[in-house]
Order: sequence, then structure tokens, then C-alpha cells
Amino acid sequence: MFDLVIRNGTVATAADVFKADIGIRAGRIVQLGEGLEKGVEEIDATGRFVLPGGIDSHVHLSQPSGDNIAMADDFASGTLSALFGGNTCVLPFCLQQKGQSLRKAVQLYHEEAAGKCYTDVSFHLIISDPTPSVLGQELPALVADGYTSFKIFMTYENLRLNDAEILATMDAARRTGALVMVHCENEDAIRYLIGRHEEAGDVKPKAHAMTRPVAVEREATHRALSLAEIVDVPVVIVHVSNGQAINEIRAARMRGQRVVGETCPQYLMLTADDLDGMNWEGAKFVCSPPPRDKDEQAACWLGLQEGVFDLYSSDHCPFRYNDPKGKLNPRGRSSFRHIPNGIPGVETRLPILFSEGVMKGRITLPRFVALTATNHARTYGLERKGGIAIGMDADLAIWDPEERRTIRHADLHDGADYSPYEGLEVQGWPTTVILGGHTMVNEGQLVGTPGTGRHVARTRSQVLP
Amino acid sequence: MFDLVIRNGTVATAADVFKADIGIRAGRIVQLGEGLEKGVEEIDATGRFVLPGGIDSHVHLSQPSGDNIAMADDFASGTLSALFGGNTCVLPFCLQQKGQSLRKAVQLYHEEAAGKCYTDVSFHLIISDPTPSVLGQELPALVADGYTSFKIFMTYENLRLNDAEILATMDAARRTGALVMVHCENEDAIRYLIGRHEEAGDVKPKAHAMTRPVAVEREATHRALSLAEIVDVPVVIVHVSNGQAINEIRAARMRGQRVVGETCPQYLMLTADDLDGMNWEGAKFVCSPPPRDKDEQAACWLGLQEGVFDLYSSDHCPFRYNDPKGKLNPRGRSSFRHIPNGIPGVETRLPILFSEGVMKGRITLPRFVALTATNHARTYGLERKGGIAIGMDADLAIWDPEERRTIRHADLHDGADYSPYEGLEVQGWPTTVILGGHTMVNEGQLVGTPGTGRHVARTRSQVLP
Amino acid sequence: MFDLVIRNGTVATAADVFKADIGIRAGRIVQLGEGLEKGVEEIDATGRFVLPGGIDSHVHLSQPSGDNIAMADDFASGTLSALFGGNTCVLPFCLQQKGQSLRKAVQLYHEEAAGKCYTDVSFHLIISDPTPSVLGQELPALVADGYTSFKIFMTYENLRLNDAEILATMDAARRTGALVMVHCENEDAIRYLIGRHEEAGDVKPKAHAMTRPVAVEREATHRALSLAEIVDVPVVIVHVSNGQAINEIRAARMRGQRVVGETCPQYLMLTADDLDGMNWEGAKFVCSPPPRDKDEQAACWLGLQEGVFDLYSSDHCPFRYNDPKGKLNPRGRSSFRHIPNGIPGVETRLPILFSEGVMKGRITLPRFVALTATNHARTYGLERKGGIAIGMDADLAIWDPEERRTIRHADLHDGADYSPYEGLEVQGWPTTVILGGHTMVNEGQLVGTPGTGRHVARTRSQVLP
Amino acid sequence: MFDLVIRNGTVATAADVFKADIGIRAGRIVQLGEGLEKGVEEIDATGRFVLPGGIDSHVHLSQPSGDNIAMADDFASGTLSALFGGNTCVLPFCLQQKGQSLRKAVQLYHEEAAGKCYTDVSFHLIISDPTPSVLGQELPALVADGYTSFKIFMTYENLRLNDAEILATMDAARRTGALVMVHCENEDAIRYLIGRHEEAGDVKPKAHAMTRPVAVEREATHRALSLAEIVDVPVVIVHVSNGQAINEIRAARMRGQRVVGETCPQYLMLTADDLDGMNWEGAKFVCSPPPRDKDEQAACWLGLQEGVFDLYSSDHCPFRYNDPKGKLNPRGRSSFRHIPNGIPGVETRLPILFSEGVMKGRITLPRFVALTATNHARTYGLERKGGIAIGMDADLAIWDPEERRTIRHADLHDGADYSPYEGLEVQGWPTTVILGGHTMVNEGQLVGTPGTGRHVARTRSQVLP
Repeated sequence: MFDLVIRNGTVATAADVFKADIGIRAGRIVQLGEGLEKGVEEIDATGRFVLPGGIDSHVHLSQPSGDNIAMADDFASGTLSALFGGNTCVLPFCLQQKGQSLRKAVQLYHEEAAGKCYTDVSFHLIISDPTPSVLGQELPALVADGYTSFKIFMTYENLRLNDAEILATMDAARRTGALVMVHCENEDAIRYLIGRHEEAGDVKPKAHAMTRPVAVEREATHRALSLAEIVDVPVVIVHVSNGQAINEIRAARMRGQRVVGETCPQYLMLTADDLDGMNWEGAKFVCSPPPRDKDEQAACWLGLQEGVFDLYSSDHCPFRYNDPKGKLNPRGRSSFRHIPNGIPGVETRLPILFSEGVMKGRITLPRFVALTATNHARTYGLERKGGIAIGMDADLAIWDPEERRTIRHADLHDGADYSPYEGLEVQGWPTTVILGGHTMVNEGQLVGTPGTGRHVARTRSQVLP
Repeated sequence: MFDLVIRNGTVATAADVFKADIGIRAGRIVQLGEGLEKGVEEIDATGRFVLPGGIDSHVHLSQPSGDNIAMADDFASGTLSALFGGNTCVLPFCLQQKGQSLRKAVQLYHEEAAGKCYTDVSFHLIISDPTPSVLGQELPALVADGYTSFKIFMTYENLRLNDAEILATMDAARRTGALVMVHCENEDAIRYLIGRHEEAGDVKPKAHAMTRPVAVEREATHRALSLAEIVDVPVVIVHVSNGQAINEIRAARMRGQRVVGETCPQYLMLTADDLDGMNWEGAKFVCSPPPRDKDEQAACWLGLQEGVFDLYSSDHCPFRYNDPKGKLNPRGRSSFRHIPNGIPGVETRLPILFSEGVMKGRITLPRFVALTATNHARTYGLERKGGIAIGMDADLAIWDPEERRTIRHADLHDGADYSPYEGLEVQGWPTTVILGGHTMVNEGQLVGTPGTGRHVARTRSQVLP
Repeated sequence: MFDLVIRNGTVATAADVFKADIGIRAGRIVQLGEGLEKGVEEIDATGRFVLPGGIDSHVHLSQPSGDNIAMADDFASGTLSALFGGNTCVLPFCLQQKGQSLRKAVQLYHEEAAGKCYTDVSFHLIISDPTPSVLGQELPALVADGYTSFKIFMTYENLRLNDAEILATMDAARRTGALVMVHCENEDAIRYLIGRHEEAGDVKPKAHAMTRPVAVEREATHRALSLAEIVDVPVVIVHVSNGQAINEIRAARMRGQRVVGETCPQYLMLTADDLDGMNWEGAKFVCSPPPRDKDEQAACWLGLQEGVFDLYSSDHCPFRYNDPKGKLNPRGRSSFRHIPNGIPGVETRLPILFSEGVMKGRITLPRFVALTATNHARTYGLERKGGIAIGMDADLAIWDPEERRTIRHADLHDGADYSPYEGLEVQGWPTTVILGGHTMVNEGQLVGTPGTGRHVARTRSQVLP
Repeated sequence: MFDLVIRNGTVATAADVFKADIGIRAGRIVQLGEGLEKGVEEIDATGRFVLPGGIDSHVHLSQPSGDNIAMADDFASGTLSALFGGNTCVLPFCLQQKGQSLRKAVQLYHEEAAGKCYTDVSFHLIISDPTPSVLGQELPALVADGYTSFKIFMTYENLRLNDAEILATMDAARRTGALVMVHCENEDAIRYLIGRHEEAGDVKPKAHAMTRPVAVEREATHRALSLAEIVDVPVVIVHVSNGQAINEIRAARMRGQRVVGETCPQYLMLTADDLDGMNWEGAKFVCSPPPRDKDEQAACWLGLQEGVFDLYSSDHCPFRYNDPKGKLNPRGRSSFRHIPNGIPGVETRLPILFSEGVMKGRITLPRFVALTATNHARTYGLERKGGIAIGMDADLAIWDPEERRTIRHADLHDGADYSPYEGLEVQGWPTTVILGGHTMVNEGQLVGTPGTGRHVARTRSQVLP
């Protein structure tokens, strides 16, 4: 007898779509077949799609964001929101502060997350202070402990690494078998443009997009790829927003480089004009890189279709809008420079791609699974996740392809007070979500408990040689 | 009780790799799981990989090839060779002769194949005479009957279509929902170069490669893609041999076109220098497009890795070397022009990619499955093939990754008298092959019978909108 | 004593801008200097630019254009219009009719031109019937006689050559030292699109542009370049209209090919929307390739600036609008298919580029001279034209950079009844024009006589190896 | 009566080639014509080419190069060598030391040059310390004084600017109307690679090339172009060595940027293998960027032919080989890191391009003039130089196209003790050189005196909007 059987669903993996029952025992998928024997619990998935639970490999939770600014989600609200959006695993970041030990940062985030999570979590590191001891001692030990990927920044005053630091950090990745993720925007160029905009008295939210033009991202993308070529390591280019940066990825691959490309819903659905709202409403759309225009959206869709992008993530980084510690903090009201960067999206990521991608015929269902789950697992070393196959974690999302919703923040579960997609109509929603064999959301109702989600150590990325 | 259970193997799909038993009943996969119940027949796959049987969507069998020339394989020897190479389905061509009805051509090939096949087969059409009745009446009926793809030629005197014919044929595909495959080489340019080589007295086999330079293929590739853009249909560019043609595919995708790319082992492993052998031995390597050089091989490998190519096929088109109806026919001995075009390869296709690709770390096992089976099934509408999932045909190849072989034609099963890969050392071989639940090859021994393989009607390509 | 001295002008060549008097004797420039001795005739060019007379290497005059259609200009009106537009030499075409001898065509055009010309003329050939005797006997003789260039067409039912003919013709050019010009549009693709537009009942002038989309030109451009690569001859790609075709030229050069690029005012100043005028007015803008859009205009300007284009010509091909033998011929009124292709422009070519290019700072004056005169002379073997240097023909245009005009057809001198640039405001006009030392136009007044212009035999193109 | 008449020569400008006498008075060209009146001095140039004197806009003279290293040429030997190589003007650099005022640097170099020069000179600035006062006060004043261009470095520990400094410096150029030249190599990447090579014990001269691979130059080129795009200024990319960097220039132009490209003889004639000589001889070829390989040479030749490159300069930067203050300084003998960077070439630049370019048919004579003189004058604001036209400085080189020489350092006039081109056979040499109407070299004999060459203030670059 199984612990749980999901019957009569249409199962989709990154390869195939087929009808099967799924038998689950001890948190794992142990059988796939027709007419499986009984389970203690049974779910009828007739007319539904049963997909691997979404993996969102790019979310920010409980990160410090500067004086008097508070991120809107901790691990409880963030993973709850992820769960309702069809995810069973998220990869947030442990941000090393300057001068801080990496290990210490990891401990603090573990403490922050302990007992709160509704999905599994697995931490990436953020290296902001790549001292010899961090790179030579801490990093190898952490990689051995299953923190097999880290992100570095080419922008943000307190996070950015210079080229020598990037090279040293990539070299440490090469030696330890970690995978490097890079946020590609040229900080000096942004500061220069901010100076010119401030000189001209242009301080409204739209100026955020104008001071981070495509050239700023293209430059940093080409540089990151070149440094990776020189060190000879694979690299993940995160949150790519436009066709010029996409072309840099294509060119690097044509040189023989191993590059993973990631894009996000904001680059498919929003434009810089959204930052131009009345009454500082544009602040709701301030994120980096900024949304671009319709042509760049089309380029990103093409990138999803033809394989430039392997990953589709949310870059969930929520701040409340109408909040003195959020978008409209006192300084943020005076200039775009002080509006915290980031938007919520962990809950809407999957429904947007399902509706705009699968239902509108832009991508197939297996491609959806690959972009939202399987490739994240393969890229980041989550061996038992991202697929529906024997022995894998019973992390599943059951989608109702007939469910039509209008996105309203009131219906979402994150800690922010708005959604950038308010009013968007979508078809298809993950109505039931199962984590490690536990039904967490059942037909839209929360039935799971915080702490069901655990931290997962990861193995070496399949992207590495 | 199952008809057959394959136990303890490591199963690989285009998405996942996992340990599972496979339960088969009535020719279909009905259960995947740990510790399945007994089967009438059982196979122990411990230490082996269990993969979907290979699908080779580009093979030529029993095709007429000009006066006094005989193709070396009929459906018996051709599918037997395919089977021993780990394939369970091949897609040969029904070649319409000028003036012949398409339906008639199909009937003749069915008669030719009847009762002989060791693998499943499914026919593509070749349209050489696109009259209004062929395009307007015959084609729609044949597509409805499951012949959902056809190939057209831009080269070969008797097969080539001019641009107006290509447009009309693509337009018919658009109207009927068929998928167009194109052999891209500019016949007029080849004839021009043949003229110059003959003028210069250069008639040896190597001249075959010199008179079909990369520019000839690049031109036709760009033209085929442009005509498909103008008609607005997806297109398969078959047997791509070089980086310039690859770049044309990339460029078309960047314009938003839907393009499937195919390459073959000869473009990964051979070079034009192979046509330069002593004593007319170069004739063994005469195929079109011709093999290029090391740089172009590298470009093709990159194309396999980064997704330009969705399909890896053999373009098996065998002629005997030492045979008056083969490569060394009386006229063929006098000039490269008369050496029949094509080389055998249906049996060596999979071991070459397994060894050179998977074992050497160039591609992952799921990518191997995608390139050799799953993508062929999706591209050409073989709904129940190309995967290991519930309900699918029990078409399986069990690979021994430790088996080391030196390729010798003496060990192969095709009707030719040589292999272009003679002497190549490979690691990994499909030692057991199962077709529709029937064990056809067991640990390297033929146990199946001709006629086990049947013709399969196909549905609309997933590549089509 | 000189026959003519032009004093105090600012002289511009393709290299330099300098103040000098110009001394002319026996139709040639014999002295440049400060304070030259007296001339029989003197012109004061203070405040004016003295430039080499424009050479328009792409004009159609007195060409037959189908039944009941009459080209609006013969050699008298056409060269008069050219002259008033600052030109001293035009290169019209001798169009070979199918079945006609090339030599015969040349004779007929000479007869047509005899005694009528206001500028020098030098004929290109158009080869429409490349028989062995045409290519093997007539062409070499004509090249030896100074007809060192010819044009071929990939479009127009009665003119187009197929690939085999193009290759044979290019090969003849290679053997004889002629330069090949190609009109690049794929006729079959156009016919296919015409069919679809007619099926849909879309027959208005705008459909002319829609049935000749960029892909049609890009395809033919790539093909022409590839065939030239295969034959190994330089090639002139005439009247390039868009960025995609431009990129094909760039790519060919990066492969090492010798390519001359030409664009025309219509691709800098008009768009396809101009074909969408009320009451069939769009017919006035019907030419091939058609004007595109603002982005493609920008691409063409860039091409002029950065060197993709060596030549800027008019492709003057005039038809009257309101005329039963012109644009509004009886069949032309019923469908775009029957509107004769071509627009007038020989008189406005130079003022448009001077005003939009030089005066607006897009190009320098030496670049203007190169694009409008010097490069034409070098490309087509007019050894004594295109420059202001000792020994060169005294072909000069004196420009008043302060002259502001609004282009009105009423002020022009061609045989058409409209200008596509009606209403365009320009700054700068060639107010005095000198041909072989004869003042033909003096301060806007005609003072020369027909027949002053003669035919000029040409030498081998400098583009050839 | 003229001061000097050069009779019967074949004059070439960047536009035209023609026979003419040249009349010179008061150091300027005042007449061009046939049969000019007598001159006080006369030169018979029958059978010779009379070209504008070469302008070498990239030479280093008397620059400090680190402790105990001495540059081999001061202004006397450097300009003498330039003169014998057919040049009449060179543009050396005034290198600002860190902490030094720009004006002070300029004064010191003027003092160094005073009375010594055999050609005209005009200084570029090198900005190594872009403080607000340097950029805001000194630079505008110096630009007003005719120092209208400056170079910045992305490599060399003591010279490199970071991105913020580059942006500030480009912005100063934008405000003042100066033209920016950039040496594009990523210093951090070089240091990283040096570290890896030193770790591996690889310290021979060839390692210089290996630690400055194409990716290092391509990265910096793309970055410099991107920063210029963001600031919106034209930029000169100096000494481009390879096809990948060339493609970055092409791509920037396709985005609409104004970019001047420069290459040098070492990238046409040398390869990295030259650094691999026995007994540390490779040190003779150590320069940055390093020479590459045959394919990259071909890419640079193509760039010269098709217009990617506007400038062909020497980057003359001479050090003696067998000298304790030169290449074989004590530390330089122990590791490639300490070999001073730079090679001599001011005297061989023109003969190499004349012989390999013009005589071998790769470029025309007008293109030679443009690449070696005219474009330098236009790019850098030398209004009266670079052409043969009325009013221009009588700076001329008379070339004997029949003169065949084998390059031997023993025959050259620079201060180094070797030539990288030793043994190269060339055809064509500038046997007589005239500076401002003064014959400096007459049939290979020095007749001029030091101090004849003067400093020339420059106007705004024509490249600027």
C-alpha cells in the first residue's frame, strides 16, 4: 500500500506527457503505472496535469537591504507564497556582508529559516568579500557541505566585485567545483548616468530604467562571459532582460563556452513604461535590470523558445509599496536612487508562463517543465528533484488547465502589498501542491504546516565538466 | 503478471536518469517502479542503461539510384542493421519518381517492406514532381493517412525542385499540416564547379567534396529558410555539415522562425581528406553534403551541445564499394560524378555518439536520448515512441557502458561491404534490443524475426503551430 | 591663357577640401592653384563649392517597358534632368531583348542617344539571354570596346536569369574582365506572394511592397553573393534597401569577398507607407525593391556612413503618373501588378544627399564626392572622371550651399509628371554645371546644347583583381 | 618662380592618381599642373610616385618606461627614422605621470623635442590621473591650445584607468571636443593569467602572448565601446590585433556609434610564434597587444581592405634588445613580465604596406594614402596635412616603385639595435622626402637638419559631431 496515490492525471516531465497513476511512499515516487494499488491517501487528478513541483532557483528572502528598508518576505511568507504558486523548492541566497565570514552568513540564514518553511529550500551563497580565506578555506568547505553555487554582483555599491575579485572568485569556483552566477550590470556606468540624470533634475522612478540602459547590461554580460572564458569556468547569467545580452550568450556559446541563461517573468511581461506611472506608482516596478520594451520582450520569448534560456526564475525580491520601510521610504519618495530594487513574483511565475507560454502555444508542456523545474535541478545539483521518476522526491504540483484567474494581490500570499501583474488574466493554476509526499495545498486550501520544508544539500552542478 | 520485466537498470529519458524496473504488457510500458512483480520474461539490467530504442529519422532503403546502381540495403538488411545498432524505429523515404503518383510510390515501398522489417518503420515522402494534383489532392490524403512529413531536394538532377516548386510544396505543407524537410545544396552551383573540375581534368573522388563546398550548402540553406519564412512554415534542415550553415539556422531562429536542425555522424567524425584515399578508396566516403574539416566538425559538435541541432540521424544510404553496381561501377571508376552518393551508418550512429558524446563528457545521457530518440518522435509525430513512460511502446535498448568495441564492418549487419568508421574504437554498445515488448536482440544475439517491425502512421508534428 | 578659369571656389575631392582656382584647357583640368592666369571665360565661385560633376551610374533611359508602357525619359530629357541635378555623366543600360544580339542592342541605344545628350553617357549592358555566343563571343568583344560592366536580374519575368545562367554569366565576366551588377529579388517568391495577395483581393499599390518583403531581397542578395563567391568574381549589389541585405554584404566581405554596395535616395527618404496614398497615388512610389520603413532607412544611412555602400545612385526609371502609358495605364489601375516599376530621381539625387547628408552632418563633403562621383568612376572604369585633378575631364558642378529650395516637379526637367520628393525642403543646389570645359548650366540657366555629351568607353574596373 | 617644383611625377591622393607638376612656395603647395614654370629648386620625379608625406599618429618617443629602462629613441633619432621611412609628421604622446599636471607633462615633452625634430610633430596627451582639475580645467585649456586628442589605457599598472575614470575622462572629452583613443586590454585578466603562468613556471617571452589572449583584448574593446556609447562620444580603438576585436568595432558601428579603428604592421606581418625564438630572442617581439596568428593577420588585412580600419600606424615604441636598459634588462632576462613592451617600426611602416598592400594588389594607391596620411590628418585635426592640394603644407614623399630592398636594421635610423622585420624583402621605397618645402632626404641621403620639424597645433577632429 502506498502512502499516497495520485490517479488518472496527465503526467508531464521535461521529456514526455503521459497518463499514469503515481505511487508515493516515504516521501518518494516509487511507482508509475496504470491502475496502481491503493494508497492511504488518494488524489483524483482526472483532467489535471501532474507536474514536478516548481523549483525557483532565484529568490531573495529575509535579506537585509540597507538602513531602514525591510524586505517584505521572511522564510514563512516567502515559501508560503512560493507553495501557492506551484513550487516545492526555492533557492534563496545567504548574503555575506563585507567583513563577515561566509560560514557565519550561512548560519544566520539557517537560523532565520528554521521551522518556518512551506517548501524545501537550498541556499546559494552571495560572495561580497572574496578574501583569500573566504575563497581558499571557507568556500571549499561550504561546497563540500552542499552549498555548490554562489552569486556575485557587478552592480550595487556594497556588493559589486571588481574584475580582479571576479577572476579570483571564478578561479575558486574552478578549483572547488562550484557554479558561479553573475548579476551583470556595470556599476560605474550606472553611477555616471545617475549623475547625469540628477544634474538634469530627473529623479522619478522611470529614471531608474534610463540609468540602466541595455548597454550597461550588455557590457557587463560580455565582461562576465569573457572573464569566465579566461578562467575557463561555466557561468550562469541571471535575469537577462534583452536581445543584446542574449546575443552575448549566443556568441559565447559559439566560442565553445558553457553558459546557462536565465530570464524572469518581468522581462516577458513588463516594460520600462510601467515605471512611468502616476504618483510614483512606477516605484512598484523598480528592479534591476529594469524591464525594457516590446521588442526586447519578444527577444526574451524567442530566447525561451530556442534554448538560449535554460532557466526561468522569479528573482522574487519583495518590498512593500506603501510602507516607510519599502518602496515609498522617505528617501525613495525623493529620488529613484533610493527606491529599493526588486519586485515580488514567486507566486505568479509559474501561472504566467503556463498561461502565456503553454496555453498560447509558444512552448510545449515538457519545455515548461524543463524551464521551471528540471533544468534548475540539473543546473544546481538537486539530484532527486525536478522530475517525475522512480526514486525522486514526491514534489508535485497538480495543475487545473481550465482554471481562469485574474491576478489580484489580495489573492496572493507574499508579504508585499501589491503585484506587478495586478489585473493580468491567466488560464491554468496549480491547485494542489505536494511536498515530499505531503499534501500542502489541496484544491487551493492550505493544509500543510510550516517546517515541512527542509534545507537540501546539493551536489555538483551537471553544467560543470 | 507482466509479459516482460526489465529489472535493476538505470533508466534514462530525455529528462531524467533513475533506477527502476520496467513492467511491460501487450507491447507497452505499463509500470515503472521499484521491485515490480514478476514477468513471464525477465531481463536483468544491473549495471546497464535502459534507454528508449533509437529512432533514426533519416535512412534510405531500397531506393532506386540510377541505372545499373543498386542500393546495398533492402528493408530486411537495413532494419536488421538498425536493430543491432540500438534502434527500434527507422523513417525511410518513399521516393516519388517524376510523373509518378505519390500514392503509387507509397504502395510500392510498402510492398517492398512487407514482412521484412526487424524494426518499426514509418515513411517520409519525397516529392520530386509537385504537380497541382500531387500537392492539392494526393498530399492531403496521405497526410491524413499518417504520412505527415516529406522531403524535398535542392540538388540532384532528377529530384531537385526549383524555387517556384519549393514554394508551392511548402505552401501545400502549410495547408495540410505536413512538415517539410529540405536537402540544401545548390545544384546549379555544383554543376558549374563540376564543369570547372572536369575542364581541369580533376575527376578523383576528392573532387566530389571540392565541387560541393560550404558555400553551396550555405546558399541553399539560406534560401530554404527564406522561402519557409515567406510561406510561413517550419522546416527541417537535414544533414547540416558545417558552421556556416549552422549560423544560417541560428539567424533564422533569431528572426523568429521555427527551424529543426539535423546533423549526422559523418559530419562529426569524417573530413574531406577521407575522400583522398589511395586507389579510389575515397569513393567510400562520397556523400552529400561531403564531410568538411576539423573546424567544421567542432562547429557541429557545438551545435549538438548548445541546441542548434535537435536531431542526430544517420542519413544511411548504403552502396557497396567493390561492386559493379556500387561505388566502383564502371562509370564511377572514371569520374567522381558517377560515384553513387551515400554511405552506410544506421548501425554505428548510436555507438559513435554514445562513445564520443556521452562517455567523453560532451553531452549528458538525457541529451543523448533526446537527440537519438525523443526529438525524432516529437518532430515527426510518433506519439507513443521516443520515451520511457507509461503507455508508450515498449521499444527499448539496453546499453552496456563497459563494452568496448573496435568498429569492423565484418561485425555489422548492413548490406554494404565496408564501414566508413572501420577501426574506430568505441565504448558502450546496445547489447539487448526490445521492440514492442519483443526481445529482438539478446546480449548481442538475434532472437527476433523479420516482420516483427510494422509500419507506424504518424500524427501532426509538434513543431507545427 | 586658359579656355576657362573657375576662381576662388572651395574645391572638394574625395580626399580633400581646399581653396583653389581651376584652369581648364581643351576640356581638361590643366592647372590648380592660387591666382591662376586669365581664361577666355571666367567663373567666380566665391562662396561656392566646386565639386566633380556627379556621376550617376544607375539610370534607365528610353528602355522598352512592356506593351503600351512608355518610359518618361529619352536621352534628351533624361540627361537634361541629370545635368540640372549636378551630373556630368550618367550610365544608362543597353537592354538585350531575349533572342537579340548584345551588339545589336548596343547599336540601337547608341542610335537612340545620338546627338541628344546633355551629359556624357556610358552604357552598361543588361544581359537577359546569356547564350554561349553572347557570353563567349559578343561579350568579350564589347568589353574590349569599353562596355566593361553589365547588369543581370533575379526578378522580372522577361529578364531574370536562373542560377545556372547567373553562374555562366559571372564566369564570362571572370574570363573577360567585366564587372557584374545584380538586381537581387527572388522572382519566384514574389510571384508566390502576388498569388496570395490576389487570392485575398489585395491589389492596391501598397501590395507591391508587401509582395516584395525584405526576405525576398535578402534571399536573392545572399544567393548572388554566394554564386559570386563560387565563381570567384567581385560583384556590385545594386539598390540595397534594408539592413538585412546590408548584413549579407558585410558577411560576404568578412568571408573575403570583393563586394560593391549601392543604395539610392528612395531607401533613405521614402517608406512603404508612401505606397498607401489615396486614389492610387501610391503608384507614384512603386519601384523595386520597394521603400521599407524608418528603421531600414536608418540602416541605409549607417551603411552610407560606415562604408558598406560605395555608391549612391538614383536608379532613375521614370514613368508618368497620370498617363495611359504610365503608372495609371489601364491595367495598372486595376492591380499593383501592372503598375510599371520605377521612379524618377536623377535630378534630385545629389541635392537630397547634399542637404540631408552633408548639411545635416551625417557625412563629410569628401565622402559626398566619393559616393556621388569618384567611386562611380573607379568602380566602372571612367579613368578621367570623378575627380578634380590635373588631366581629368573638366566636368564640374558648382554648388551654392546657401541655396534653399522646396522640391517641386514643376521646377525639374525630367519627362515625368511628378516627383516622389515633392515638397521636400533642401539646402544646397548645383547652380552651375560644366561638362568637358563647356558651361552647360549657368546660375540655373541652360546654356549648353544637346549633343555636347558624348559616349565614353570605359576601362577595366578597379574593383577587379 | 616657385621655391621648388617637382616635375613629371605621378601624384596620388586619397582620391585620385594623376600626372602633374607640383609648385611649392613658402612651404606650401601653391600650384598643380602641366608644365609649371621654373622653380629655384627642381626635382625630377619621372617614373616615381609623389605622395603626401606619411603621418604616423601613434609613436612613442622619449617616454619614461620604468626604473632602469630606457626607450631607444629620443626626438632626434625617432623623427629621423620616421623621415627616412617617408613620414613628414608624427604624433607622439605626452605622458602624464600620476600626480603630475597635464600642462607640466606637455612642457617637459616640448623641452625634450625642441630643436631636435626632423619631421613635424604634434602631441597627443596620455591621461593617467584624471582628477577633477585635470579634466575640468587643464584639459579644456590644452584642447584650446591644439592638443585635441588624448589616449587612455585599460592596461599597465601605472596607467590604467578604472571604468569610473574612463567614463569621467570620456565625459570630459565630450564637453571639450577632444578625441579619445583607447588601449584596450583588461589589466586584471592579464594579471590573473600571469599568476597562472608563473605558478606553472612558464616565464619565457612567449608567455607574454599567452597571458594577453584575444579574449583579453576583445573584452576591453567591447567595454571601451560600451562606455563610449553610454557617454555618447566617438572613440579611436588603437592597435587592433585580431578578428574578434574587429567584430566588436563592426558591431558598435551597426549600433550607430562613431568608431575609428587602427591597426599596425605587427598585426599584419608577425605572429605569436615569433615570441618563441631561441635564447630569449622572442623578447624582440614583445609588444601589447601581442601578434596573433595567420588567421588573425588575414582578419586584419580584410579590415584594412573593407574599411574597418581607418588608420594604419606603427605604435613605434622602441627598446634595444641587447642592452641592460632594454629588452634584456636584468629582470627581463628572468621573466617575460619584465621585458619592456614595445617594438620599433616607424621607419618600416610605410614600405611594408606599400610592398605587401599596394604592390601585391591588396589595396589601391589612394587607399594607401588614406590609411597612411589623409585619415590621420582628418581624424586628428591636422588641417593642412595629409593631402596634395592647393594651400596644403608641402610635405611630400617621392616613392620609387622599382626600388627593392631587404630590410636590415643596419640600414635603418632608429635608436634600437634590431628590427622585427629583419630580412623582409620589400618593393618600393620613399627615396626623397620633403618637409614644408624643404628637401630633407634626397635620393636616400639626408640633406635636412634637425629642428626643421616643428610642433603643430591641431583643430577639432572631423570624427566629432
